[in-house]
Amino acid sequence: MKLSISKHELNEAIQQVAKAASSRPAIPILGGIKIDVTHQGVTLTASDTDISIQSFIPVENDEHVIAKVDKPGSVVMPSKFFVEMIRKLPADTIEIEVGDSYQAMIRSGSTDIQMVGMDPEEFPVLPAVEESEVLQIPGDLLKAMIRQTVFSASTSEQTPVLTGVLWNLQDGLIKFVATDRHRLASRTAKVDTAPEYRFTNVVIAAKTLVELSKLIPDGSALVEVVVASNQVLFRIGTLLFFSRILDGTYPDTSKIIPQSFKTELVLDTRKLTDAIDRAYLMSREEKTNIVRLMTLDNSMIEVSSSSSELGKVTEQLEAASLEGEPLRIAFNSKYMLDTLKVIDSEQIIISFTGAMSPIIIKPTDHANSLYIILPYRTTN
Amino acid sequence: MKLSISKHELNEAIQQVAKAASSRPAIPILGGIKIDVTHQGVTLTASDTDISIQSFIPVENDEHVIAKVDKPGSVVMPSKFFVEMIRKLPADTIEIEVGDSYQAMIRSGSTDIQMVGMDPEEFPVLPAVEESEVLQIPGDLLKAMIRQTVFSASTSEQTPVLTGVLWNLQDGLIKFVATDRHRLASRTAKVDTAPEYRFTNVVIAAKTLVELSKLIPDGSALVEVVVASNQVLFRIGTLLFFSRILDGTYPDTSKIIPQSFKTELVLDTRKLTDAIDRAYLMSREEKTNIVRLMTLDNSMIEVSSSSSELGKVTEQLEAASLEGEPLRIAFNSKYMLDTLKVIDSEQIIISFTGAMSPIIIKPTDHANSLYIILPYRTTN
Repeated sequence: MKLSISKHELNEAIQQVAKAASSRPAIPILGGIKIDVTHQGVTLTASDTDISIQSFIPVENDEHVIAKVDKPGSVVMPSKFFVEMIRKLPADTIEIEVGDSYQAMIRSGSTDIQMVGMDPEEFPVLPAVEESEVLQIPGDLLKAMIRQTVFSASTSEQTPVLTGVLWNLQDGLIKFVATDRHRLASRTAKVDTAPEYRFTNVVIAAKTLVELSKLIPDGSALVEVVVASNQVLFRIGTLLFFSRILDGTYPDTSKIIPQSFKTELVLDTRKLTDAIDRAYLMSREEKTNIVRLMTLDNSMIEVSSSSSELGKVTEQLEAASLEGEPLRIAFNSKYMLDTLKVIDSEQIIISFTGAMSPIIIKPTDHANSLYIILPYRTTN
Repeated sequence: MKLSISKHELNEAIQQVAKAASSRPAIPILGGIKIDVTHQGVTLTASDTDISIQSFIPVENDEHVIAKVDKPGSVVMPSKFFVEMIRKLPADTIEIEVGDSYQAMIRSGSTDIQMVGMDPEEFPVLPAVEESEVLQIPGDLLKAMIRQTVFSASTSEQTPVLTGVLWNLQDGLIKFVATDRHRLASRTAKVDTAPEYRFTNVVIAAKTLVELSKLIPDGSALVEVVVASNQVLFRIGTLLFFSRILDGTYPDTSKIIPQSFKTELVLDTRKLTDAIDRAYLMSREEKTNIVRLMTLDNSMIEVSSSSSELGKVTEQLEAASLEGEPLRIAFNSKYMLDTLKVIDSEQIIISFTGAMSPIIIKPTDHANSLYIILPYRTTN
């Protein structure tokens, strides 16, 4: 293997795939980046047990020559050192030459590096994903759907399937659901796909979706999604991102959403967020994060929290509308803040069935998002 | 105690003094901020065992009224909660009223807070510093001197005095020295003071100087320094910063600086930094950080490092000048990088007496800085 390549393009591609390289590999090869060089271009691949990322650098694009390939070949480089070193090389062009037993020579300007590479035959093979159906989602929509659901996924490995976000597709509607049993976030969107194409119980680890999200550029460029039996493939430009589908059956959450409400409030999202944020500061001192919400007369509500050591915070807020029965309810203020922070709508509707029933939060400007927080059972 | 005060000014002053409040106080009062209100203004004080910070907010400045005092008084507020809450209050004005047994009411907009305050009589008394002599140092010079020395102080509590920076004043010259026995940084500057004013063995904790540095605004406004028997007081505008002087006698470091050299190199600071940074990446894998420097012919030098698992990095650099005997030396690349990063001069002089003798590094554009790194004794 022998080539010279633009530092800029190589560095960009390496930074993208390196996220999939294991930082504490069980065997050294899993902490590596595979480099495959052909006369068409350079393919970089990294893979741990959960995700694999592959990026392709063509030898030239419309504007200029990116790589000059003298001799095709493959090698695996130790990721951590390789990623940092390529970024810090002095010249715009990098020469890479791999000889016998994967001894690599890297040259750039006055820098000369000998590296011990690894056998590409030992590198894990990428999952085969059969592309029968492809789902296309605009990048910014996919990023928003991820941001608006991942925070509700469980962080406990006790029920592994709950550490993921559930994806369902039916009638051209894609729906994301995440819950840790104390709260739930769901987000729906229309997508361009064959109307008969459907899938259910596709669960992708929340932390994988967060990594995916960072690789999606801003804007509405389409991300292609291919769902196979135990893998999902995301195609973002020349980047391929493979994720394992989590094992297990996701619980049916449809039953926990109340269908009728006794009290409904419309509130300014920003003002409620700020008021709860201040009450949270006090509730945090008690480790419980308990904040109380109470309806008052004249469309006013009161948000409060107290700490035996520190004191009490009381906030009064005017509701844009307040309908139904008077209410006193207590909830985890951290969960409420997490939810309010992902709602982009200026106003929200909060619906209650009673002090012991799930709290439903929705934006006022569209019907595609729904959040649930279970209340605390307190004595007063 | 009763007053209303501008949120902006109160918040700024609180953020400054809060750095001196103990984050894990042995007794609650040490984790507090003392508020003293008079008809002249509001004084905020925080203090742990090492440093104390005091800030004064006048009731009005040239431009506008900052505080309206109805009733003078004092109280101590728990720092962490108070700092965060004041920052998050909704209105531009904050009303504070303290009643019996230090029960405080804080009101801002629609927010109402009851806080349990503490008895100001129990708050530590600020050290008395007799102002016989005052040293004035421009803020940006003091910040530079701190930045250029603190990194060489020891982080080990084995010899507490070495965790500090030594300050000596003699003949109108102030000198900072820091060493951890493996490296040394020293910085000298002319200061405006009475020529007979002198002190020696004033050692201030490096971490205290880092905190002080953050409070000094950019620019050349003068910082006043008052050195007392066991305390130093820094006056930065309306801010007072007290630091304890570390116990113990600082070692005499003057003997370790060689007076004659066998090899002298002049190098581009940026290019050497980058070359050593790349060699460091490889040396880091071996945990030793060993990098080798070797003179070549034609004013060239070679910087290299190797790792048994990863390989070898070799860098060639042209010296602006190379005088004296050929040399091979090994050193801790992390120490060299720390030093090179604080040198603002475009070129540096590195002087050697031999492979086992201290390496001396100096900027070329002034004679006020001197850095020493002890070499590694290696077999090849």
